[in-house]
Amino acid sequence: MDYGKVSLEKHAQWKGKIEIKVRAAVDNAEALSLAYTPGVAAPCLEIQKDVDKSYELTRRWNTVAVVTDGTAVLGLGDIGPEAGMPVMEGKCALFKAFGDVDAIPLCVRSKDVDEIVRTVELLAGSFGGVNLEDISAPRCFEIEEKLKKCTDIPIFHDDQHGTAVVTLAGVLNALKIVGKNIEDVKIVTSGAGAAGIAIIKLLMAMGLKNVIMTDRKGAIYKGREGLNPIKEEMADITNFKMEKGSLEEVIKGADIFIGVSAPGTLTGEMVRSMAKDAVIFACANPVPEIFPDEAKEAGARVVSTGRSDFPNQVNNVLCFPGIFRGALDVRASEINDEMKIAAAKAIAGLVSDDELNEDYILPKAFDARVKDAVAKAVSEAAKSTGVARL
Amino acid sequence: MDYGKVSLEKHAQWKGKIEIKVRAAVDNAEALSLAYTPGVAAPCLEIQKDVDKSYELTRRWNTVAVVTDGTAVLGLGDIGPEAGMPVMEGKCALFKAFGDVDAIPLCVRSKDVDEIVRTVELLAGSFGGVNLEDISAPRCFEIEEKLKKCTDIPIFHDDQHGTAVVTLAGVLNALKIVGKNIEDVKIVTSGAGAAGIAIIKLLMAMGLKNVIMTDRKGAIYKGREGLNPIKEEMADITNFKMEKGSLEEVIKGADIFIGVSAPGTLTGEMVRSMAKDAVIFACANPVPEIFPDEAKEAGARVVSTGRSDFPNQVNNVLCFPGIFRGALDVRASEINDEMKIAAAKAIAGLVSDDELNEDYILPKAFDARVKDAVAKAVSEAAKSTGVARL
Repeated sequence: MDYGKVSLEKHAQWKGKIEIKVRAAVDNAEALSLAYTPGVAAPCLEIQKDVDKSYELTRRWNTVAVVTDGTAVLGLGDIGPEAGMPVMEGKCALFKAFGDVDAIPLCVRSKDVDEIVRTVELLAGSFGGVNLEDISAPRCFEIEEKLKKCTDIPIFHDDQHGTAVVTLAGVLNALKIVGKNIEDVKIVTSGAGAAGIAIIKLLMAMGLKNVIMTDRKGAIYKGREGLNPIKEEMADITNFKMEKGSLEEVIKGADIFIGVSAPGTLTGEMVRSMAKDAVIFACANPVPEIFPDEAKEAGARVVSTGRSDFPNQVNNVLCFPGIFRGALDVRASEINDEMKIAAAKAIAGLVSDDELNEDYILPKAFDARVKDAVAKAVSEAAKSTGVARL
Repeated sequence: MDYGKVSLEKHAQWKGKIEIKVRAAVDNAEALSLAYTPGVAAPCLEIQKDVDKSYELTRRWNTVAVVTDGTAVLGLGDIGPEAGMPVMEGKCALFKAFGDVDAIPLCVRSKDVDEIVRTVELLAGSFGGVNLEDISAPRCFEIEEKLKKCTDIPIFHDDQHGTAVVTLAGVLNALKIVGKNIEDVKIVTSGAGAAGIAIIKLLMAMGLKNVIMTDRKGAIYKGREGLNPIKEEMADITNFKMEKGSLEEVIKGADIFIGVSAPGTLTGEMVRSMAKDAVIFACANPVPEIFPDEAKEAGARVVSTGRSDFPNQVNNVLCFPGIFRGALDVRASEINDEMKIAAAKAIAGLVSDDELNEDYILPKAFDARVKDAVAKAVSEAAKSTGVARL
């Protein structure tokens, strides 16, 4: 199927992938007096007395804003806020269908970090959480950090953390197959953007020590010229042997490759230079860094991509609906590393030891168990880390 | 019924009066590939090429933001943005139920005019229109005017214009009953806030000449000390005889009283001092400026209130769903006076000459004909004034 062509036709038919549904009866005068004036004054006054009642008397408890500035939409780049809306609406549809979360798409006509932050900050009272989406790096880091400081609701940049959680889930199960420990393996990335950095940070929170990130200029190391602040930060905590050179050079002996970069970045020759039982995450989409058959031929034991037509798809839909479901259920004030790790373990745990094999390290996107398993784990982690308010 | 008590219970049960409904199938891998990645890239790129396509390929064409800062919620005053949300959600429920418009409630945590304007301006690409709600005067005038200049979508402050449209509809039919012309009558208001000023401006656009507005300090006239800018503007165009004094003094001989002020402001004695066949709009809610029976005893011919339990209710639900429906249907860039007047005439026109009487000058809120009649008139007026983009 020509997905683009058919999708365009479908979008023209749908005229919007989400709409509003009314939950309260407003079909007669008495109903109107309860849902609206004069009755509605009572819940208003309750919330005035205690703002937290907004979580009980309005839809805030279940509502998430999906916010973009349209600067990094899919692999299309900076296409503008309105042009990002089909993705945001799609995300909102997935939030509802996969997590029963009411998500509202908002595109912001500004690329200024502080303006975007201020806009979301001013609206935070309307929502139980914010999902940042398709905002270019390094601005996305700054926007997320600033919003975390100035709001008291979960701020989650799915391109970073959703990808990181699902990748971690895949890594945990791949390590089981190859019988290695995360503390001992060497991981090399291709790509040091939003997703790559979040993945490595989360893996390091799980114990990863030996990691080299690469970008178009090769290995990132402390002191490399022209690094932006976030890459400088990563240079400080990765690549402790200060290896320099291209991906081809630094990948030698690596146990795991994580690609969040561009099609064809990884060659069979590079895979052959990796350690025995190499694990490949080739997540460039739709064309991966290397195709699974080529990687397997070159000796890779486990190969994961971002595509649904190959085994082991890294699909964020495994993560974000359940992670927000879990956070909203306990009115979490943030989504911290412990909650993300709990989500990753829950996703990985859905593949039983009996079922686990080279072609099944991650549950399928439509596995009906995912939402509840992730939500439960995330709620519990929120409680145990003291960020749950219920 | 104790509406407050029951409403509070209902709100606790509803846990939100609106939610998100998914329109596009996302229940299998192929559906996901069309509604989301990779297919969704195609509509994104179409919108990048032509931003107006956002009205065809996303829900923008039917989506309105309902925006408040919580400073003038119902008659409760400045109760804060979150506390205004039950009203906003109620409004959104009415938008959907009465106009099939998808409305999204947004409360803004700022009282600063420019910050509120900038917030809405930055989000304007997400919406086909903006309904401002429960924002205190005179800030609401400034916010509306500034937003009209910096956006190209309809900006409509319902507390002003919705009330004005329905009041005009009532005035038109009341004038038929008493056999007077709008050009000839004397109108006196009690109240010179957002609603009062919008009503008088719209009536003047229909031909009203002889009008005196009063506030707590009495008649507003050119040169009165301490007037804010908007009242100064009204002083320039009303009260051409420069009458001074209290409501009691200036109401003498008036044909129509329009109250958008406080309970009990109008006495029977004042009504007796009005012209023959006096018409009373006593819209303070829930307790009107004068109750209908008292006004009738004092000689009033037609009495209208904001309450559903008396005849002739001035209810904004007669206006805002249809007016936005009509504006969205032709992708209007604004809602101008001609569109408002067309809406008022359409509402008034639903009461046939045969049916028209002292107790029936306005259609009922649940009259199923209202939406289509208003929408059609508004769409046509948008076309004839050149603001329709379809």
